[in-house]
Amino acid sequence: MNLNTNYSKLQDSYLFVEIARRVADYKAANPGANVIRLGIGDVTRPLGGAVVEALKNAAAEMGTVEGFRGYSPDSAGYPFLKNAIAGYYKSKLGVDLPPDTFQVNDGAKSDLGNFLDILGHNRVLVPDPVYPAYVDTNIMSGNELIYMAGNEANGFLPMPDYTLDADLIYLCSPNNPTGAVYSKAQLTDWVNYALAKKAVILFDAAYGAFITEPGLPASIFEIPGAENCAVEFGTLSKMANFAGTRCGWTAISDRLIINGESIAKLWFRRQSAKFNGVAYVIQKAAEAALSPAGLADCQTSLDYYSANAKIITGALGRLGATYYGGANSPYIWLKCPDGLSSWDYFDYLLKEKNIVGTPGAGFGVNGEGWFRITSFGSRENTEEAARRLIG
Amino acid sequence: MNLNTNYSKLQDSYLFVEIARRVADYKAANPGANVIRLGIGDVTRPLGGAVVEALKNAAAEMGTVEGFRGYSPDSAGYPFLKNAIAGYYKSKLGVDLPPDTFQVNDGAKSDLGNFLDILGHNRVLVPDPVYPAYVDTNIMSGNELIYMAGNEANGFLPMPDYTLDADLIYLCSPNNPTGAVYSKAQLTDWVNYALAKKAVILFDAAYGAFITEPGLPASIFEIPGAENCAVEFGTLSKMANFAGTRCGWTAISDRLIINGESIAKLWFRRQSAKFNGVAYVIQKAAEAALSPAGLADCQTSLDYYSANAKIITGALGRLGATYYGGANSPYIWLKCPDGLSSWDYFDYLLKEKNIVGTPGAGFGVNGEGWFRITSFGSRENTEEAARRLIG
Repeated sequence: MNLNTNYSKLQDSYLFVEIARRVADYKAANPGANVIRLGIGDVTRPLGGAVVEALKNAAAEMGTVEGFRGYSPDSAGYPFLKNAIAGYYKSKLGVDLPPDTFQVNDGAKSDLGNFLDILGHNRVLVPDPVYPAYVDTNIMSGNELIYMAGNEANGFLPMPDYTLDADLIYLCSPNNPTGAVYSKAQLTDWVNYALAKKAVILFDAAYGAFITEPGLPASIFEIPGAENCAVEFGTLSKMANFAGTRCGWTAISDRLIINGESIAKLWFRRQSAKFNGVAYVIQKAAEAALSPAGLADCQTSLDYYSANAKIITGALGRLGATYYGGANSPYIWLKCPDGLSSWDYFDYLLKEKNIVGTPGAGFGVNGEGWFRITSFGSRENTEEAARRLIG
Repeated sequence: MNLNTNYSKLQDSYLFVEIARRVADYKAANPGANVIRLGIGDVTRPLGGAVVEALKNAAAEMGTVEGFRGYSPDSAGYPFLKNAIAGYYKSKLGVDLPPDTFQVNDGAKSDLGNFLDILGHNRVLVPDPVYPAYVDTNIMSGNELIYMAGNEANGFLPMPDYTLDADLIYLCSPNNPTGAVYSKAQLTDWVNYALAKKAVILFDAAYGAFITEPGLPASIFEIPGAENCAVEFGTLSKMANFAGTRCGWTAISDRLIINGESIAKLWFRRQSAKFNGVAYVIQKAAEAALSPAGLADCQTSLDYYSANAKIITGALGRLGATYYGGANSPYIWLKCPDGLSSWDYFDYLLKEKNIVGTPGAGFGVNGEGWFRITSFGSRENTEEAARRLIG
């Protein structure tokens, strides 16, 4: 039996384990401390009323002989949901794509990882700091990783370097962990680079719904030419609080042709053999999330997180801190004060302010000296954390 | 950009497309015909009352701030569900495994395919006739496939050939498509072969709940030594009508060590990077399906399918037909009469009896001359089909 030996090259994902260890140690030594966690990238607001109703109705339907559904018609999802996603892109983003562009998935993470299955060995550009799953999945596939530095000089938005030949490019905008957002002009540069290099952009649009500033692109398909060079991974995890409900989509135009092959067809073939579609009740819940009532619920939740972000950035502003994100993003990417390292600042915040965040160094070498705070906490905890920061 | 060139070696999955085409042609020419479909491998009974209630309750819970859940604690599922699965194995199958043996998934198909991700290039034994996904996923991975003939001589239960060295062995019992079931003695031979060859058995237990005959094994873990050489894929798709609700488990003992590596840990590492767990509401539904009330609902449904199977095999018995399965399995594997080929018999049944089944040739060369009928139809249709068969 041969194993995939690339797995031995993976680094243990020690970031959140180490955070948990330090917090546990501190709490053991200080049992009375009221520690506020603003480190997690997980949503906390409840599912909207339209989604809950849809789930209940679909459950009742599945309990009747007449309403019961077995396997989805195919692995890519029911037409009702593909239509709802296409309608959302058209009405909210001004992007007009045929419904079959959207292959429904159980969240962006599965497809971002599994997508490498249809590819061979490639040269892969990833930003640094970076969402760790991009790196891990490429190590598992034995790909050659090339890191693009995100830093203050480029506003944590690395741009194309034409002296580098890449096959695959990961972009996440609004970015996790930095909260930075590419402009249309910048994404146009990336699309032009990908077209010139015959490369494919994997665009992680998980945080697009957090954009409030007019003109900033929430989808790579707002850029002309993207249909010929990009795959977009969308999800309801953050916009509709579906992190624990699992539904999203992978958008591939039938105009994306590589080496004469339709990538949409290759991906569909892959999914047909290794995926059996998303649960019917979840697809109905996702359809409800994208209905007018559901989108109103989403907006209420997005506004809640956005107000949290303003409370935190307000405090940081009073401190004269340097930070990115917070607007158009649930993440605030903070420069550690006084030249502290990420972990030293982590310890300072934990011990002096009883606030837990995420050390930027955990997202790559360019994250050293930076720190991620999220707006996903409760209002009460966020306000208390802000008071402690300026106190 | 390099693509996975193995995909070009895949055969188009034309079986169900061709069936649909012939049925559509016939119906177009005979609009008044009442065609009964007994070809699909999809369940038709509704979700049980306990499952529907659990779905509704979990949906309501997710709609409250206090009850809301974001990401699962990890990709392998909530402890409540792993405990329920372990309890089911212990009480129903007499198999005592720690709950962490079970890594929760969205159905057996995903994990059966994705499991190859943690392996390198291997020699793979698959039965023929065979569930097509085993073959497709191994072609995608570039593995070397070796087919084991299932036929009348071995009762469609191929046994180990020690002159063959294999790394990976696919077994499905009760079998899709043949309905044949390995005895404990036969599975013991397979476990001994795998241990001798340092091979791993991938055991597809999707139909285990259909076993009614005492002593027949529903789990590979009923066989001593299996923990050291086998991975079991379980699912609620058929036993609890979850085909469209998507929940199952991959069972790997921490005693399964290959080349010094824990396969359970490798698989968990893979899932942590490329999967984000099953939706909370679905995990609650799965827990309910495995509760006493849920298992009673499952039994009602299993009895319904079993009665259908008896109606069909009763008719086949009166015709003096040769068949396998029907007992301990939802599938009936019928020898085509008068030396007809699978597709000629398909055409005969469609045109003369207005019954649709599945030509055995679609499952591999050893399926030629055989035909699959399922017990997943309605009682009314099944009874009518039986009348037509003997009429």
